[in-house]
Amino acid sequence: MNTLAALLPEGTLVTDPDILAGYRQDRAFDPDAGTPSALVRPATTQQVSTVLKWADEHRVAVVPRGAGTGLSGGATAQNGALLLSTERMREITVDPVTRTAVVQPGLLNAEVKRAVAEHGLWYPPDPSSFEICSIGGNAATNAGGLCCVKYGVTTDYVLGMQVVLADGTAVRLGGPRLKDSAGLSLTKLFVGSEGTLGVITELTLRLLPAQPPQSTVVATFTTLTAATEAILAVTARLRPSMLEFMDSVAINAVEDELRMGLDRSAAGLLVARSDAPGKYAAEEAATIVSACETAGAAEVFSTEDPEEGEAFAAARRFAIPAVERKGTLLLEDVGVPLPRLGELVTGIAEIAARRDVLVSVIAHAGDGNTHPLIVHDPSDADESARAQQAFGEIMDLAIALGGTITGEHGVGRLKKAWLPDQLGPDVMALTRRVKDALDPHGILNPGAVL
Amino acid sequence: MNTLAALLPEGTLVTDPDILAGYRQDRAFDPDAGTPSALVRPATTQQVSTVLKWADEHRVAVVPRGAGTGLSGGATAQNGALLLSTERMREITVDPVTRTAVVQPGLLNAEVKRAVAEHGLWYPPDPSSFEICSIGGNAATNAGGLCCVKYGVTTDYVLGMQVVLADGTAVRLGGPRLKDSAGLSLTKLFVGSEGTLGVITELTLRLLPAQPPQSTVVATFTTLTAATEAILAVTARLRPSMLEFMDSVAINAVEDELRMGLDRSAAGLLVARSDAPGKYAAEEAATIVSACETAGAAEVFSTEDPEEGEAFAAARRFAIPAVERKGTLLLEDVGVPLPRLGELVTGIAEIAARRDVLVSVIAHAGDGNTHPLIVHDPSDADESARAQQAFGEIMDLAIALGGTITGEHGVGRLKKAWLPDQLGPDVMALTRRVKDALDPHGILNPGAVL
Repeated sequence: MNTLAALLPEGTLVTDPDILAGYRQDRAFDPDAGTPSALVRPATTQQVSTVLKWADEHRVAVVPRGAGTGLSGGATAQNGALLLSTERMREITVDPVTRTAVVQPGLLNAEVKRAVAEHGLWYPPDPSSFEICSIGGNAATNAGGLCCVKYGVTTDYVLGMQVVLADGTAVRLGGPRLKDSAGLSLTKLFVGSEGTLGVITELTLRLLPAQPPQSTVVATFTTLTAATEAILAVTARLRPSMLEFMDSVAINAVEDELRMGLDRSAAGLLVARSDAPGKYAAEEAATIVSACETAGAAEVFSTEDPEEGEAFAAARRFAIPAVERKGTLLLEDVGVPLPRLGELVTGIAEIAARRDVLVSVIAHAGDGNTHPLIVHDPSDADESARAQQAFGEIMDLAIALGGTITGEHGVGRLKKAWLPDQLGPDVMALTRRVKDALDPHGILNPGAVL
Repeated sequence: MNTLAALLPEGTLVTDPDILAGYRQDRAFDPDAGTPSALVRPATTQQVSTVLKWADEHRVAVVPRGAGTGLSGGATAQNGALLLSTERMREITVDPVTRTAVVQPGLLNAEVKRAVAEHGLWYPPDPSSFEICSIGGNAATNAGGLCCVKYGVTTDYVLGMQVVLADGTAVRLGGPRLKDSAGLSLTKLFVGSEGTLGVITELTLRLLPAQPPQSTVVATFTTLTAATEAILAVTARLRPSMLEFMDSVAINAVEDELRMGLDRSAAGLLVARSDAPGKYAAEEAATIVSACETAGAAEVFSTEDPEEGEAFAAARRFAIPAVERKGTLLLEDVGVPLPRLGELVTGIAEIAARRDVLVSVIAHAGDGNTHPLIVHDPSDADESARAQQAFGEIMDLAIALGGTITGEHGVGRLKKAWLPDQLGPDVMALTRRVKDALDPHGILNPGAVL
């Protein structure tokens, strides 16, 4: 470790156990997180290269880490591993002519949004954690968010990158061009690779013109069936810029905290938005209102006021922290093709009843991506075991419905036991071949994904 | 070869030299195309598996082929190789609820567009050759088109696929889900891999609601500088659904054929469209008109009539065949970041003058992707040599301007000598590692890309 420290500027490598302790976990809070040998906080691509070259030569595992807000344990420390935090890599340049931004991975998603907004531009992907998650972590997990139902996910906005490979070689892939068919689509391969193929040190992001003001519809339902019917009716008629769902537990948990007058008796609540230009936003909102009413909504509220609408979107974003106050969460991220959403929601309720655990379902409903939140008390061993059983059974259910075990959080370490069930042995073998080709000594984030 | 024929239904494997002759080249018309040993036309994924398993065991090269409209020689026959045509794989199912289509690779792009249009849906990517190119070839080259300036390229619409690997294993990747972070982004790796990593036998495509009617602006310019200024002015103000350019040679070639009253004296012509909803299309068209006028347009014409607008778009699409009537074409596909477009166009004119060859420039101007058409007479050895020199120098210029040697046609065999200049040795080595991992015996389209 001393030989590596000597290759880096002073203060880049830290071994102080008190500091290391703060980097052992991400927001999966894996109790089995290991004890790393050191933390490196490189400030440049060159320093990342130095770290990986050294680690590859010495066969030392490297766990890359953005802001540590990952929910699947992708950044959980391993015994003896180097933790590589990108927190010091925070530069951004915005080019309004090509509508692109070149960003370093340590910037928060919200910081990218703000920097490009100064040029009248918009970076769409918006994880609920956008104020605390890093753009590098977003790329590593192919993160989604609330507007993805209309605007797509992180990979749709990554035109190029600089990435440091396992042996320390830094390569540039793609660039500020909408079209590029020269060679393999390696840029897209690294997006979503969760630190297992390389460390991204720079991203070239595609931007859009600023999003128009949104109209917002909030609808409550007395049954989950009516709510899922409304979701399908809305997406069949138009492309909302947001279509989010909260169940009764989430509604009440949010209302406990925010006191905004949500209907505590509702079985489900939808927040839908339209950002169609000018008067068409209100027209689309009217279509959404009508779809909800036809599906049997108990109450439907519509507003053109962006601030009022944003308050409902913020309430939905606040659902996870609000439910978290009821107990420790096992946070799911399963997705299904939209027509199977009703079966997924019903099936989750059955699993919760069978395992006698509280499961709150919130969802990016418009794209079929749900976040069942399994509440449990870690000091209650029996309940925790039942929560774990439910966690696995929900993934089994999603797979059986033709879905995915993770829509936007990544596999990390928490879900890797289920990945073979989704992908099958042949795709796992293919994945392993790519991994071995790019990281022959297996130093990059070992134990994640594979 | 007889052992393979016996494994396939009668008529699947063909060795008749007369039939084979029609499959030796694609539209790159490589005079050095080899003599294949046989042509296979499988009808199912299982048959593709059988072919690749046999070829891998017998170390026989396989050149996959869609409709044979490729412009980079990606489907050029090699001596002794098996040609694998997907022309018999033509099924499609459309799901209006998830807004996805599952298509086999042999369908033409236009057939996909028509099939989904019956459900009120739209598959955006639109190569100029959309009526004759296959959807499988589109995926293999990550094809672009005219609407990509607003709607992105093929990879942005591929959610999943079935692909047969070099050893004959058929795998399913992704699926009809907008979000999926489970495992590596292998789907995206196969898009644009030009048949070097596997043979795509099925695609799951994301669809959009039908495109609204478009407003169309046609503007002519007396200088190329004014035209490129107008392009930047338009893209700075809005996102057109089409922004195409033709130079003087192309204008006159099209006018020779179509007699639609184009201004033969113009140095350049832009066709720009807006598909903003309702009255906003006309508003955006007015903004485009104003941007063109400010840039010094000689004449600007605007129409709300979709048919009239489509006639101008069709004229632009007809430019390549029209210029082709002046001689044999070396067809370029270079792209640059948009601010460098003017330098690219000027530089191409200098190269044409220096090499004393006619180069007509047409372009998907809004995304910086140009198609310089180098006209030459193959029976004139000296002119052909100068055309070849210009062909290489234009790619050198694009690379020097931070661009790409191919925006949407692929590298194939025609451009592979320039790929290392664009990507550099480290990315070439990375590409080689992926290729070797997925096709260890090198049977898949050898000589293409790498």
